[in-house]
Amino acid sequence: MKQVEQLQWLEQVILDFYAEKPVAPQLVETILYSVQAGGKRLRPLLLLELLEGFGIRLTKAHMQVAAALEMIHTGSLIHDDLPAMDNDDYRRGRLTSHKKFGEDMAILAGDSLFLDSYALVAMAELPSQIRIELIAALSKAAGTFGMVGGQVLDMEGEKRQLNLAELQAIHAHKTGKLLAYPFVATGVMMEADSQLKSLLQETGEWLGLAFQVRDDILDVTASFEELGKTPNKDLVAEKTTYPALLGLEEAKDFLEMSLDKVEEYLQDLEKKTAFQAEKIRKIVESLRLHG
Amino acid sequence: MKQVEQLQWLEQVILDFYAEKPVAPQLVETILYSVQAGGKRLRPLLLLELLEGFGIRLTKAHMQVAAALEMIHTGSLIHDDLPAMDNDDYRRGRLTSHKKFGEDMAILAGDSLFLDSYALVAMAELPSQIRIELIAALSKAAGTFGMVGGQVLDMEGEKRQLNLAELQAIHAHKTGKLLAYPFVATGVMMEADSQLKSLLQETGEWLGLAFQVRDDILDVTASFEELGKTPNKDLVAEKTTYPALLGLEEAKDFLEMSLDKVEEYLQDLEKKTAFQAEKIRKIVESLRLHG
Repeated sequence: MKQVEQLQWLEQVILDFYAEKPVAPQLVETILYSVQAGGKRLRPLLLLELLEGFGIRLTKAHMQVAAALEMIHTGSLIHDDLPAMDNDDYRRGRLTSHKKFGEDMAILAGDSLFLDSYALVAMAELPSQIRIELIAALSKAAGTFGMVGGQVLDMEGEKRQLNLAELQAIHAHKTGKLLAYPFVATGVMMEADSQLKSLLQETGEWLGLAFQVRDDILDVTASFEELGKTPNKDLVAEKTTYPALLGLEEAKDFLEMSLDKVEEYLQDLEKKTAFQAEKIRKIVESLRLHG
Repeated sequence: MKQVEQLQWLEQVILDFYAEKPVAPQLVETILYSVQAGGKRLRPLLLLELLEGFGIRLTKAHMQVAAALEMIHTGSLIHDDLPAMDNDDYRRGRLTSHKKFGEDMAILAGDSLFLDSYALVAMAELPSQIRIELIAALSKAAGTFGMVGGQVLDMEGEKRQLNLAELQAIHAHKTGKLLAYPFVATGVMMEADSQLKSLLQETGEWLGLAFQVRDDILDVTASFEELGKTPNKDLVAEKTTYPALLGLEEAKDFLEMSLDKVEEYLQDLEKKTAFQAEKIRKIVESLRLHG
C-alpha cells in the first residue's frame, strides 16, 4: 500500500474514534489540532511498512495499533511544549496546543490521548492474547519504564555535563522505546520466536538512537522554517547533546554509523526471514543528512 | 478479607510494580508520594467489596485491576491541582505534587500514572478476553469519553450559570464514570449477563452522583482540617454546585435521596443474585452526612 494511503487510513481511524458522540467537542477539537498538525508519522509508518515487509496484508486492526502509538507520541509532544516543560510556542510550524487553546486544555488533551490510546488497541480485531501483549508493551514503552522515565532523566541531566553513556541511556528511554515499539509490535503480531523478536527490537533501538542524534544535529544546523519549531533550544538550555559532546562533524559520523547499523540489521532480517526491506530502507535512508 | 488487609495488599501491588528496575528514581518517588498520600481508596475498595460480595475470592489479579483504577484517579488529582487547572497547594493535608516536586515533575508523574495503569491490567492473571474488556472499559471511563471529557465540560461550565441537568451531565462524566467503573468491572469479571451488567452499572452511577453532591456540600460546610484541602474553592470560583443551585438543605436532601436509591439497587441485587451487600452497604452509609 502507498504511504499516502496508509496515512489517510490511519487518520481516518483516529477521526472515527473521536467521531463517536463527543462529550466535550472542544476537547476533541484540541486533540485533533495536534493529531492533524502534519508530523512525519514516523512511528506508525515504521509499523505499517514492517508488517507489509513481512507480507502481512494491512487491516483496520493494524491501523488502530499504529494510531494508538501516534496518539501517545502526540500527547507527549503537547505536554513537552508546556510552559513548565520546554515552553515552546511553535511546533511543526504552528502554535503549540497551550498557545492556541490554553494551558488547561493542553494538559487535558495530552491526558486524553494517553488514556484513549489503549482503547484503540483493545478494540482491534486481533486475537485477545496478542492485544494484551501489545498493550503491555506499549504501556511499558510509554510510562515510567520508557518515555516518561527518560524525560525525567533528561530533565535531571540538564543540570550537569553528561558523558556519552549517560546521554544514550536517556535517549534509549525518552525517544528510543517508542521508536522501537513498531519493531516490538511487529514481532508480537507475527507471533515471532524470541530470536526474531530480539533481532527486531535491536533494529528498532539502533533506529531510535540514529533518530535522536539526527534531532540534536538539526537543532544546531537547521532554521526555524526547516524545523517548524525554535532552533538552538538545546544550546540555549546548555543541554548535553551529541554535537556538544562529540563536535558537529563527529556527531554526523555517529549518525551515519548508526544508520549503517540499522541497514546491517535489515540485511540480516532479509537473510533470515522472508522480510522485504525496500520500503523500510527508504525511511531509514531518508534520515541521512546530505552534506 | 478485612479492609485494612485489602488496602495493604493493594499498596503492595503498586509498590511491586514500581520496584522493578527504576529508570528515574525521582519519578517513582514523585508518583508514590501521591499514591501513598492516604486517600480513602473509595474506588478500589468498592471493586474489592463488590467482588467479595459476589463470593469471589480475591487474588492478586483483582488487586492489579483495583490498583490501575486508583492510579488513574491519582494521576487526575495531580493534574487537577496544577496551577493551570485548580491551582491547589494542598491535597489530603499535604503539599500538592507540583508544590513539592515542581510543575514539570507533577505533569510527568500524572502522565506516568495514566500510561502505566494499563500494564497492570494487562499483566493480571485473568482470561485474555476479560482483560481486554477491562482495559477498553477503563480507557473509555477515563479519557475523552469519560473523566477527561467531564473535566472539560466542567471548565466550560465555570463561565456561566448551569441548570441541574447540565450539572449532572458534567459529573456523570467527570467523577461518575470512574466511580461506576468498579461496578462495570465486577460485571466483566463475573461474565455477568447484560441485565446484571446494567443493574450493576446503574448502581454505580447513582453512587457517583451521591458522591459528587456530598463533595459539593463539604466544600461549603467543612473546614481545611476536615477536608485536607482548601474549602470554599467552588464559592470563590463562582462554580455552579448542588448547594448553589438547590440551597444547602435541599442539596443535603438530594444526597440522602441518591444514597437511598443506591440502597434500593443493592437490595435488588441481593434479591436477584447471591450478592451479599453488607460490606458495600457500609461504604455507602459512610457517605451520609449526619446533622
